[in-house]
Amino acid sequence: MLQVALLGAGRIGRVHALSMTAGAGCRLVAVADRDEGAARDLAQAIGAEARGIDAILADPAIGAVLIATSTDTHSDLIRRAVAAGKAVLCEKPVDLSLDRALETLRLAGDAPVMIGFNRRFDPNFAALKAAFDAGHVGRGEMLAITSHDPGPPPVDYIRVSGGLFRDMMIHDFDMACWLFGGPPARITAHGSALVDPAIGQAGDVDSAAVTMVWADGRIATIRNSRRAAYGYDQRVEILGAEGLLQAENVAENTVRLSTAAGVVAAKPLHFFLERYMRAYQVEWAAFLDAVTQGGPMPVTLREGVAALACAEAATRSLAQGVTIEITPDMLG
Amino acid sequence: MLQVALLGAGRIGRVHALSMTAGAGCRLVAVADRDEGAARDLAQAIGAEARGIDAILADPAIGAVLIATSTDTHSDLIRRAVAAGKAVLCEKPVDLSLDRALETLRLAGDAPVMIGFNRRFDPNFAALKAAFDAGHVGRGEMLAITSHDPGPPPVDYIRVSGGLFRDMMIHDFDMACWLFGGPPARITAHGSALVDPAIGQAGDVDSAAVTMVWADGRIATIRNSRRAAYGYDQRVEILGAEGLLQAENVAENTVRLSTAAGVVAAKPLHFFLERYMRAYQVEWAAFLDAVTQGGPMPVTLREGVAALACAEAATRSLAQGVTIEITPDMLG
Amino acid sequence: MLQVALLGAGRIGRVHALSMTAGAGCRLVAVADRDEGAARDLAQAIGAEARGIDAILADPAIGAVLIATSTDTHSDLIRRAVAAGKAVLCEKPVDLSLDRALETLRLAGDAPVMIGFNRRFDPNFAALKAAFDAGHVGRGEMLAITSHDPGPPPVDYIRVSGGLFRDMMIHDFDMACWLFGGPPARITAHGSALVDPAIGQAGDVDSAAVTMVWADGRIATIRNSRRAAYGYDQRVEILGAEGLLQAENVAENTVRLSTAAGVVAAKPLHFFLERYMRAYQVEWAAFLDAVTQGGPMPVTLREGVAALACAEAATRSLAQGVTIEITPDMLG
Amino acid sequence: MLQVALLGAGRIGRVHALSMTAGAGCRLVAVADRDEGAARDLAQAIGAEARGIDAILADPAIGAVLIATSTDTHSDLIRRAVAAGKAVLCEKPVDLSLDRALETLRLAGDAPVMIGFNRRFDPNFAALKAAFDAGHVGRGEMLAITSHDPGPPPVDYIRVSGGLFRDMMIHDFDMACWLFGGPPARITAHGSALVDPAIGQAGDVDSAAVTMVWADGRIATIRNSRRAAYGYDQRVEILGAEGLLQAENVAENTVRLSTAAGVVAAKPLHFFLERYMRAYQVEWAAFLDAVTQGGPMPVTLREGVAALACAEAATRSLAQGVTIEITPDMLG
Repeated sequence: MLQVALLGAGRIGRVHALSMTAGAGCRLVAVADRDEGAARDLAQAIGAEARGIDAILADPAIGAVLIATSTDTHSDLIRRAVAAGKAVLCEKPVDLSLDRALETLRLAGDAPVMIGFNRRFDPNFAALKAAFDAGHVGRGEMLAITSHDPGPPPVDYIRVSGGLFRDMMIHDFDMACWLFGGPPARITAHGSALVDPAIGQAGDVDSAAVTMVWADGRIATIRNSRRAAYGYDQRVEILGAEGLLQAENVAENTVRLSTAAGVVAAKPLHFFLERYMRAYQVEWAAFLDAVTQGGPMPVTLREGVAALACAEAATRSLAQGVTIEITPDMLG
Repeated sequence: MLQVALLGAGRIGRVHALSMTAGAGCRLVAVADRDEGAARDLAQAIGAEARGIDAILADPAIGAVLIATSTDTHSDLIRRAVAAGKAVLCEKPVDLSLDRALETLRLAGDAPVMIGFNRRFDPNFAALKAAFDAGHVGRGEMLAITSHDPGPPPVDYIRVSGGLFRDMMIHDFDMACWLFGGPPARITAHGSALVDPAIGQAGDVDSAAVTMVWADGRIATIRNSRRAAYGYDQRVEILGAEGLLQAENVAENTVRLSTAAGVVAAKPLHFFLERYMRAYQVEWAAFLDAVTQGGPMPVTLREGVAALACAEAATRSLAQGVTIEITPDMLG
Repeated sequence: MLQVALLGAGRIGRVHALSMTAGAGCRLVAVADRDEGAARDLAQAIGAEARGIDAILADPAIGAVLIATSTDTHSDLIRRAVAAGKAVLCEKPVDLSLDRALETLRLAGDAPVMIGFNRRFDPNFAALKAAFDAGHVGRGEMLAITSHDPGPPPVDYIRVSGGLFRDMMIHDFDMACWLFGGPPARITAHGSALVDPAIGQAGDVDSAAVTMVWADGRIATIRNSRRAAYGYDQRVEILGAEGLLQAENVAENTVRLSTAAGVVAAKPLHFFLERYMRAYQVEWAAFLDAVTQGGPMPVTLREGVAALACAEAATRSLAQGVTIEITPDMLG
Repeated sequence: MLQVALLGAGRIGRVHALSMTAGAGCRLVAVADRDEGAARDLAQAIGAEARGIDAILADPAIGAVLIATSTDTHSDLIRRAVAAGKAVLCEKPVDLSLDRALETLRLAGDAPVMIGFNRRFDPNFAALKAAFDAGHVGRGEMLAITSHDPGPPPVDYIRVSGGLFRDMMIHDFDMACWLFGGPPARITAHGSALVDPAIGQAGDVDSAAVTMVWADGRIATIRNSRRAAYGYDQRVEILGAEGLLQAENVAENTVRLSTAAGVVAAKPLHFFLERYMRAYQVEWAAFLDAVTQGGPMPVTLREGVAALACAEAATRSLAQGVTIEITPDMLG
């Protein structure tokens, strides 16, 4: 059975640990974290060993690693893991620097590296994609993504996040590229700090609208807000020549209360842990399948770079107030 | 152009007057009411003449009458109007007495008499019926009707209403017979006074559940309450061999408000005037079409009697605590 | 940590095994089944031991057993497990014979025995119950339960099932008693074999409508069909003095496709394994909590008997064509 | 009673004629059209007189006119009607030329001129606006408007339409300005000819996405397509600090069909006549109220010019590939 290791024992690392230990296809043998106590606690809880990253990468028995460390370490760890012959599943984004990500892409070559765009594995978005690819709405023309978080992270996090486009909208860039079969030709971004002025003072925005246009004229719009009082708002719709496909939010339950005040239904699931727990499981299973059966990575490193290129273009567009072309050199 | 008269200038009479004057196919020339002032007021508002019933029935220029007087006058007026050669659209129920209704049916023979089961003409129920008749769910097996009023009428009205089954559920009996192609073999009724004890003291119930079973085993359940705090609740569903057909309530508008408290949508339309205004218009148009083109009545007097037979059976079932057979002599 | 054993390694036993091994609160040490191979296979898959029932009940280290064997063994196993001092979670129904179930209830006394009415633990029905108990619709007046299976079981199963009321509607009887705070005063049942004539030839029905009336006049209607072409149909609604509470079906996903042919959404989850997987987990956790903390059983044996009494009354009502009273001696 | 005249007996003129003759507050005495036969036919059908525009404007008994002629005549007719002392309700857009519209605004001064942005009077959008103004979602942050026609008009019409932004999206510009309390600071437009290449050859687009940004940072996105295979798609949503407000499409009926193939609901109402018939009635009633009671115009000429300024900016933005500022001189 494939032995795997987890790099990073923070919040998202612990989420992945659930998937890595739940299924039957692998054995999670080691956990690493710069905070050794965190590594030890998680390792103990799941019956694994806390080890250093060097030791993990040097262990020939370990066939794959999941990188869930902080973003600034992603590129380096991908390169080292690839060099050590491990299959890699790395959390998004590849990097905050497009140049460094491109260099990682060049160095990784054909190595099995998957980027963790978990939303592709959400059953709702997967069903939307399947229906679209099956031609149920004909040729896609306009894509609209709504993606709001329930509330903003601390401003301290915002400062090191790379900005809304690289940190938050990167998921939506990947969603758009995935659904429309590749990156757009150009991107225009608008944004404001409407939720919290401190976010604006930190040089970022918390509310943004981006338009992507493909070479053949197809158009996508993405809207992001750092605050949705009603919970995690994650919707996608595709207008095609023959109809409309929509993936709606997932509600907490199906109860409806009708009174003189109206008809009240439950809110959307609160945040990504609630909404995407199943997606994380399917993501891991898809990675395992590809690794053990030698198939192509379900989300490639190149696709991870493309999403980052979109984020880079959006960031520049917002700063300069102009539309930015996505040029081939940005895609590697 | 067909000249028509309206008998009854009360609430429901005034509703019908709107339909009778809105379309192009007839001219409403006369209005009668036992309250001459009411007749005069309505006649004036719509450019018609207030006349006595005798004068109207004696006028050879008038081809059709709509009977919207109190229930205790229906049978007599149907008989007189038929005798005078008028086409008749009479409000439900035909009568409170099944015997008298059966005698009216016998006397009316083949005369063009339609009973005003307006719900058949509601666009939603009409679409459900069309989909059912088109075989979209295959053979019908179980039918469920939910039909709640927003609030109870005055107890004084309850006392002369003939009871919930003849006054309120009669619509649902007709709906069931219409959808399942004829009256059931037997009926069992349960009921309680839960909304207002005074209704119980008046000898009636305000909450009832009735089960109808057809000779071939098909089953319908009807639920009625005199009170729904959220407005007029009017739903029908048919389970068939190949699927389920449902007609849902019509909401006041399509606005949804999502907050930390949940997702709030608008209530159902408040009561029958709001929900069925369009149905009354289509009903009148269907009557006019049948009269002017000599076609069959869209809802026959015989069907009106069948609904009353169901109400009679339910009333007896509740009183005696047993299931009541619908025998051929109850259907005329 | 509490050691537990599983009696029965069939379909539902394997479902329970997932919950019994997933959580942290217990250790599943033994599995028994009359088919020793089945017990061995399951035991191996989950790291437990296949043992005989006698050995399990005689093992003082085992504190609780889950009974998932065939219905005809439930009473006997409950009695033996109680006598052996084990806490018990037993699948529904308690028995096919109300007399034997009453005797089991008498013998069990205050022993910790829970009956597996899993639907109470479904997040949707739990949310409906919580909202109802919180008074969101005021006093409950009318309850309606719709509960259709996607397709009928083999007729061979039907023959030994105890009939639709004891086998299938028993869940709905418990739901009604749970929501309305105790068993009704009387029950009237109607039913037909509409789905498959062979079911009728086997002496059972596959389509049924039952009315329950409480001593204070509250009314519940339950509809069951053995076939719903669109999947598992599991809905509950409560009409109260101040509004309506509804728990709707859970759809496979949230995708909607709008074309010239209409707006298509996903079907309900196909059957009980899909719909109630989460409910089984919560059910087991609730049992564990009660056992380890000494609290009252979340679903008592007495409640299991009450549901069976309703099934008994419905069976008699259908056979005799009359309303059946639920008398105190039927409830133990 | 106020005497009114209708200028224009084409499709939209006939729609307005229904409202102008249905209510009790005015008398439609005259109809004009460059096609005298059309004027005569309509006049006859509604009991009015066919007259020339000069005669109508010269008739002191006529207090108000509704201008439903072709767009190129709007400015001139507004000016002449104002000069003749008539109150004016003019169909959108004010003009295809912003300069000419600004001159009309200057000339009209304080005269009672209303522009026919019918969607403001749609009960759903009116309810959304009321809830928003009542503060139900707090401060508005992001607005999204989806507005697709069921199918494109003939290319011959496209050629003289002024382009998608002036002809179609002008409604959405008004909706955005109305909801967000005035025009935005800048506009960026993207568009393609995806529905029909002939539209592109005619120099127009059929699919467009526009972003509007207000001086305080609020953002609106508008999406338009000339084709929606499933019918008229008219949705608006506002994300505010405390929640989300959405106005959904209006379906043809409330019937749902559940089968093995999914759950099918009815499509949205097909096009503007079906969806906005009620809005046209309320629009006319609001105009009449304002005229007879001397209140402010429900939609002012200045607002009509602002919507046109947005269309002008969007047209320039698309042509030049840059963001366009809305300057004060564009608003009059």
